[in-house]
Amino acid sequence: MFVIITYDVNEKRVGKVCKKLREHLTWTQNSVFEGEITKGQFLKCRQQVEKIINPEEDSIYYYIVENPKNIKKEFKGTEKGDFDIFF
Amino acid sequence: MFVIITYDVNEKRVGKVCKKLREHLTWTQNSVFEGEITKGQFLKCRQQVEKIINPEEDSIYYYIVENPKNIKKEFKGTEKGDFDIFF
Repeated sequence: MFVIITYDVNEKRVGKVCKKLREHLTWTQNSVFEGEITKGQFLKCRQQVEKIINPEEDSIYYYIVENPKNIKKEFKGTEKGDFDIFF
Repeated sequence: MFVIITYDVNEKRVGKVCKKLREHLTWTQNSVFEGEITKGQFLKCRQQVEKIINPEEDSIYYYIVENPKNIKKEFKGTEKGDFDIFF
């Protein structure tokens, strides 16, 4: 499946959330991760992230497309991705 | 079709971009809009937004799912949506 995860998490917890999502998915920009993932991995990732967040303050959206062929990604502008974070 | 639009736009232009996206889609959180939209409306929206941004500084991702039945949205945490912005 292909998933897009967007989050709005308090800065106290955002580092941990990012680190966990990065284990499973690719960071694209701001608070957005995406990628192909198995259902099992996704459930594991989700469970781990939801242990970190405070559901009374934070929010996470999951957009799930079972067949990756059914989603098309397009882009305009300057590419950032993981590169900018680390270098 | 169902689209998710995420953006990373310089603060000088972000207000204009949001205003334009809000004419066609629903704000969910941070820099994310989503919604069902016709192909024609989407192309119009995209054209308008791409006139506002500076492609050397800003970036916009479009995730497009032709058939809205092929995407599932799930959520954990505190709902924000448009309400928090205006009230």
